[in-house]
Parts: sequence; structure tokens; C-alpha cells
Amino acid sequence: MLHIEFVTDLGAQVTVDVEGPDKLLEVQRQYGRLGWTSGTVPGGGYQFPLDNEPDFDWALIGARKWTNPDGEEMVIHKGLAYRRRELEAVDSRKMKLPAAVKYSRGARATDPEHVREKADGEFEYVTLAIFRGGRRQDRYAVPGSPRAAAPAASQPARPAPARPQPAPRAAPELEEGTPF
Amino acid sequence: MLHIEFVTDLGAQVTVDVEGPDKLLEVQRQYGRLGWTSGTVPGGGYQFPLDNEPDFDWALIGARKWTNPDGEEMVIHKGLAYRRRELEAVDSRKMKLPAAVKYSRGARATDPEHVREKADGEFEYVTLAIFRGGRRQDRYAVPGSPRAAAPAASQPARPAPARPQPAPRAAPELEEGTPF
Amino acid sequence: MLHIEFVTDLGAQVTVDVEGPDKLLEVQRQYGRLGWTSGTVPGGGYQFPLDNEPDFDWALIGARKWTNPDGEEMVIHKGLAYRRRELEAVDSRKMKLPAAVKYSRGARATDPEHVREKADGEFEYVTLAIFRGGRRQDRYAVPGSPRAAAPAASQPARPAPARPQPAPRAAPELEEGTPF
Amino acid sequence: MLHIEFVTDLGAQVTVDVEGPDKLLEVQRQYGRLGWTSGTVPGGGYQFPLDNEPDFDWALIGARKWTNPDGEEMVIHKGLAYRRRELEAVDSRKMKLPAAVKYSRGARATDPEHVREKADGEFEYVTLAIFRGGRRQDRYAVPGSPRAAAPAASQPARPAPARPQPAPRAAPELEEGTPF
Amino acid sequence: MLHIEFVTDLGAQVTVDVEGPDKLLEVQRQYGRLGWTSGTVPGGGYQFPLDNEPDFDWALIGARKWTNPDGEEMVIHKGLAYRRRELEAVDSRKMKLPAAVKYSRGARATDPEHVREKADGEFEYVTLAIFRGGRRQDRYAVPGSPRAAAPAASQPARPAPARPQPAPRAAPELEEGTPF
Repeated sequence: MLHIEFVTDLGAQVTVDVEGPDKLLEVQRQYGRLGWTSGTVPGGGYQFPLDNEPDFDWALIGARKWTNPDGEEMVIHKGLAYRRRELEAVDSRKMKLPAAVKYSRGARATDPEHVREKADGEFEYVTLAIFRGGRRQDRYAVPGSPRAAAPAASQPARPAPARPQPAPRAAPELEEGTPF
Repeated sequence: MLHIEFVTDLGAQVTVDVEGPDKLLEVQRQYGRLGWTSGTVPGGGYQFPLDNEPDFDWALIGARKWTNPDGEEMVIHKGLAYRRRELEAVDSRKMKLPAAVKYSRGARATDPEHVREKADGEFEYVTLAIFRGGRRQDRYAVPGSPRAAAPAASQPARPAPARPQPAPRAAPELEEGTPF
Repeated sequence: MLHIEFVTDLGAQVTVDVEGPDKLLEVQRQYGRLGWTSGTVPGGGYQFPLDNEPDFDWALIGARKWTNPDGEEMVIHKGLAYRRRELEAVDSRKMKLPAAVKYSRGARATDPEHVREKADGEFEYVTLAIFRGGRRQDRYAVPGSPRAAAPAASQPARPAPARPQPAPRAAPELEEGTPF
Repeated sequence: MLHIEFVTDLGAQVTVDVEGPDKLLEVQRQYGRLGWTSGTVPGGGYQFPLDNEPDFDWALIGARKWTNPDGEEMVIHKGLAYRRRELEAVDSRKMKLPAAVKYSRGARATDPEHVREKADGEFEYVTLAIFRGGRRQDRYAVPGSPRAAAPAASQPARPAPARPQPAPRAAPELEEGTPF
Repeated sequence: MLHIEFVTDLGAQVTVDVEGPDKLLEVQRQYGRLGWTSGTVPGGGYQFPLDNEPDFDWALIGARKWTNPDGEEMVIHKGLAYRRRELEAVDSRKMKLPAAVKYSRGARATDPEHVREKADGEFEYVTLAIFRGGRRQDRYAVPGSPRAAAPAASQPARPAPARPQPAPRAAPELEEGTPF
């Protein structure tokens, strides 16, 4: 038995029982569609593989897509709108970073210090998620997405092992030239 | 089975078992009427749709309405009084915000830094809730409110699905003119 | 079923199962007498009605009365002694506050910033509890106190509803003259 | 049923079910011997009665005794060594403190601000535990210690009440001459 | 019954039930291979015995080995890459430290203050783990490692006690010359 802790759309702290590890993402999707979130956004934002960006299921982190009145693609998370930005690959002597897509917003007065990142000048921003490198994980896709592999239903009917399987992850953030 | 974590009116940390997701708001109302709260007030305050303001059920967040000796409408939350303020719509080149109603109080010496907001001069305040934009959600209303839709009792008697349904939410806070 | 989280007299984090909401205060008294506490002291201290001060059951918050070698009445909470102070009513143009009794101590080097309050000069102090205004709640009294109403045992024998009842609370802290 | 939350020797957060309050210290000893800890060290360190110092069971807080290569008695807690210091009684006009034994170490760069205490000059230290005043509690002693009272086994065989009993505690820290 | 709290690779807070203390490391390995972590990295990093470094099972803390494009051995933990460094023994008048292996990375803007350590100049870094001194613990090794002792399967078939056994730990960090 598993138990997942959420913060609801009303800000309440609620734990939901989950039958097994293979049901976990399903429960996250189900409550994430209501705007419930689990855990805090990691400093610098969630990291996902770039190939997951086109059909990423934002419900997994309690967010949803939204098109603003100017027709821009945005993502809403806990009532705040994050703008989509494409970052080109960096290949300098000091830094090597593959291309990425980043969802971020301007910092607010009530954002704690450790989530703020500096941009040009005095401008500060907060990142929700960054998609960069790595290998695509179908389990992160919107269910039924044409890009995702055949669903579980098409697999042989033998009982799946409850034991979760290791999965590829996003490319680690690399810092070249650090002195240690 | 769900489990909701409260801080009681005596400051104790108490978890209450809840039979299913459809009973959650009922349990929040029941204990909220005692002044029990779940989770922390989000930085910048709770965000609700403006159309929920007239009959909002403050028990949902452990608060209650109160009229002060001068006849002003206020809301009490964890022993502190918040004053009701109407904010006009903003429609400038830098910012576009629909009309709102805000409940706030002056900051106290013991308020942590991340909940304080700056007003004119050195004055700082703390927001409990802001009602702005969005689409009304009947489930946030005081039970039996004439403005709310027909209650569940008038629906067909077939067992309701335990699975919660997605719901419209308050309008996201938009920042126009941010450089990313 | 309820579950209450304590910090024991040895600093351990322990959760205790409670049969129902009507047993909660009993469990708090039982473990509070051992010096176990639940939750953190609110910034600015617990707020209780003034009429509860004479026979307040300090075990409810894991504290106990203590008379120091100089014969002064004090309260011990988590190994630290708080001194009793009577505050006169304030009725000025800027502030209106009813009479109160406060239990406080000088700040220690290891007290976090958000619990410290400024007094005259550079002196800082920390408040455990303040009793001010409000309507007396018998359930906060030492069991068997002559001032408390007839105990539950003298009530008719029909099963009490498990649902907790709303209760009067301490007077909210009012800030007159705040500009919002 | 009780549940105690530990941080294991590998830093994992693990909760252990405990049959009743009378089994709690036994479970703390059992896991404490593995270096598991529950809760955080209180600011200024744990407070215990002075008479418990000679045979204190350090396993209760996940620590253990250790003699360093120079033959000094130390205590290891979460991989850090604390040195034993005897403090003489203070009896001045400003401060009255009974004799004590303190276990402390120099502050490290990664210690948070609220656990650091100032010594002479710029030197800062962190206290694990201070033994001062109070009345000895046999339940804190190493099981089988000759100084401890007769063990439970020698008591009459009637079932012990599950309800825990109030116990004497360490002398509170007194601040003389505070202006409130 | 035990319960271990994880943060999943998606940042969710999930608790997993564990049958008994003897199954705990197995569960940590199983979920750690997915990048799930339990608890926070201690300030200054995890401390392990030096002899555990060659075949340490990084899954125990939700990390994994990774060789970067330049052929360097690194460790990935929560999407960040840590570089391996060998530290020579220190034997000066002020400090005595045995040889060690350290895994660390440069500090990022969003790292909280208490995990940052100062290096030369203004450079700051964050340590994931340090292997120094102590006595090797086979239970920390990759299962099936040739350096590990014979596995449990080769032991007599009598039921193992559920009670966990004390185990040797890494050498404590010693500060010579501290004035207390």
C-alpha cells in the first residue's frame, strides 16, 4: 500500500491511499486535474526530457495548459501563469547545454528567496519546469497521445509485477569547468 | 480512504480520516467551523473567483465572518481580523487586472517575511484571500445558499462516482509585459 | 478515527490514534501532563479568552504551573519558564485593547526570528499565551474546576453525537486605524 | 496504537508502529542504537536532570558514547562528535544557575543560524544536551544500570495501565531580572 | 510495520508500507533505482566509511553512477551531477583527518544557504556524500558485490529476528583544538 500527500485546490493537506506503485501515476493524474499538487517544485523547476514537452501531461504536477487572451500558450500552476520559452543550445568554452523549453514567470513579492533566479538587471523569475535532453518517457505523456507507445491494454494478460521498473531520466545538469 | 491534516483551534496537529473524495469538503466545513485549518495560507492569499465572494463559506478555510464594533464586515482567521476591501479593475499599459475583493490585515512583528506585502510607504500587510475573475464554483458556497445550484439531493439516486471531477478555477494572475 | 502528532518530552515525533473528536482534548490532557506538545506555538502566542485564565488547564498545551523560589507564579513549557504579567486595557485614539494576562519570557539566542517581539530598547521577548476578551470556554478548564459547568456525566445518557460543535473563541486582535 | 517518526542512519524518513505508550522508550532505544533519531535537537540542546548524566542512555536520542584517540569521553550523534564539559554553578546578582554538564561541538559552516550559540570572540558552538538540576528519572538510564530502581519485572504481575504517568522533569531554565 | 516517506522522481510525496525493519533497505534500493529519495541530504553531505566507496549502492539514496561525455565518473542525484574527488589525509597541528572520497558540485542560485560550503575565493559548492574512515558495512554494497560478505541466503535457515542489530558507522568528524 502507498499513500500520496497532496495540497488541494483549497490549500488543504490531504493524503490519498494508493493500491500499489503501478496505480500511482493514475492517482496523480486524477487529482492533478483538480489542481491538487504533491511535494514542492524543486529549486530551479522540475526537469523533464525535451522529447516529453509536446504531449506532457501537466496534470501529473497539478498544472494545466491555458491560452491567454493574446493567444499565447501558457501553463497554470497553483493559480499562477507560466510562459513558455524556447532556449537555444549553448556550446561555449565554459558551458555546454542542449536546447531546452522552459516555463517560467516573473518573481512575486511573496516568493521565498530560494526559488528566485536572476535574469538581466534586477529582474527575477521563477521556473516551473525545464525540458532538456534525456530520453522520452511515455509514462509522462497525456494518456492516449498518438506519440506514446501502445498502452498497457495491448500487452499480454499475465499479471504485471507490482515492483516498479527503473526508467530513463532527463539529462543531468552539467557544469563544465568547475574546479572539483 | 483519504486523510486530512488540520491544525486545531488549540494549535494541535490532528489528522482526520475521510471516507472518500466526495466527503472531503463536508469534513473541511465541519472542522473549519471550529476554527481548524488545513495547510498554510498561500503567499499572497487564497485565490477564489469573484462570483463566489457574496456567499463564500469561510468555514472551508477555518475562518468566519464577524462584524466589528464599528459595523464593518470582517473575517476572523486564527484569531486575527481581516478587513474587506474592494479593488477596482486595472487596465493600464503595464497591467491588466479585473475587479477584485481582497481580505487583508496589517503585518505583525511575528509574521514571516514571505507573507508580507508592501503598500504605500513602509506599511506592510498580509492577505488572507482575494476574489478575482474566474467562474463561480457552487461547491465553495455556504450550504443552502439561494445563489447555489440545486443541491445533490435533487439529483437521480444512482450512486455517484467516487472519482472527483475537474472544476473551473479562479482566473490566473497575469503579468503583462514580463520579458520572458 | 483521528490521529494527533506530538513532540514528546524527549523530543521524539510520535502520533497517537484517537477514537473520535470527542476524545481529543482528553488525549491532549493525558499526554500534555507528560510535557508532550502538539504543533508549534503560534507567532505572538496562543490566544485564549480572559475568563479562562484562572483555571486554564495548561496540560492542554503540554505546559504546567510552577512557583519559582521567589514565590512567583510561572508556567513551564518545554523546559523554559514563562512569567505571568497583567496588561491593563488600552483605549487610545490609535488602539483599543481589552485587559489581558500574558505569559512571556526573554528571548534566547536560539529563538527563531519570527517568534521574537520587541519591548523597550533592545530587549526582545517571546510570548507563550495571551488571555484577552472573548467568552469563557469550559472545555479549556482544569477538569473538576468549581468554575466549570456541570460535567458531561450529569447529562442525559443518550449517545452524544460524534460531530464536534462550534464554540465561541477569544476576541480577535483588532487593529484600529489601519489604512485598508 | 502509536507511531514514531525516525530519520535513519541513511537519512531516510521512516515511521515505526508502536503497540502502546509503555513500549515507546523501548522502541526508541532499539532503533536509537542504530543511530536513528526522532525529531530535531531543541534549540540550545536537550535538557535532562543532572543526576541522569552518569548512566544516561544515549540510545534514547540516537547517540552513543565514544572515547577519542586522546582518551577523551565524547558522544557521537549523527556522525558528529560532542565534547563533555562540566559547568560550575553560577550565583551572581544577574543569574542563578545550578552546576551542569554540557555536550557541545564547534559550529560548522552548514549549521543553521538558530542552533548556533556564541562563545568568547567570534567562536560559535552547538549544544547536543545539557544536564542541570531537576530530579533523576530512572527511565532515562541505561537498562540494568545499578543506579536505576528495581526494573518493572520485580513489580506485581497485574496488568499495567496503558495510560502514561506524569514524570518529574529537568529544572526549568530561569532568567532572573527579566523586566516582565 | 514500518512506513518510509519518499519524494518520487516527479517530486511527489509518497509513503510506502514496509513489512519489517529487515525489509527496509530492500525497499530503499527498489524505489531508489527510480530516483526516489527519502529525507534530505544532511548538511555537509552523507557520511559513509571509506571502504564502502568502491561498491557503494547509490540506489540506497536515490542516486546512480554516470560517466560524462569526457569519461569522468560522476553520480546523478535528483537530476544534478556530482563529481568524484579524492582528498588526501590531513595531519597538521590544527586538524587530523583520514583520507576521503567526496562527491560534490558547484552551488546553484537556488541552493539554500545551509547546504553551501565555501571553497577558495568566492566559489561555493554542495556535497552529496563523503566517504572517510570507519569500518566497511556490507549492507551498503551493491547486492552481489564480490567484496561483500556471503549473502543471507547462505546463512542457517532459522527465522531471523525482526529486531535490527547495531552496526558500525563511519568515523565521526573530529575537530581538534576546539576550546570546549
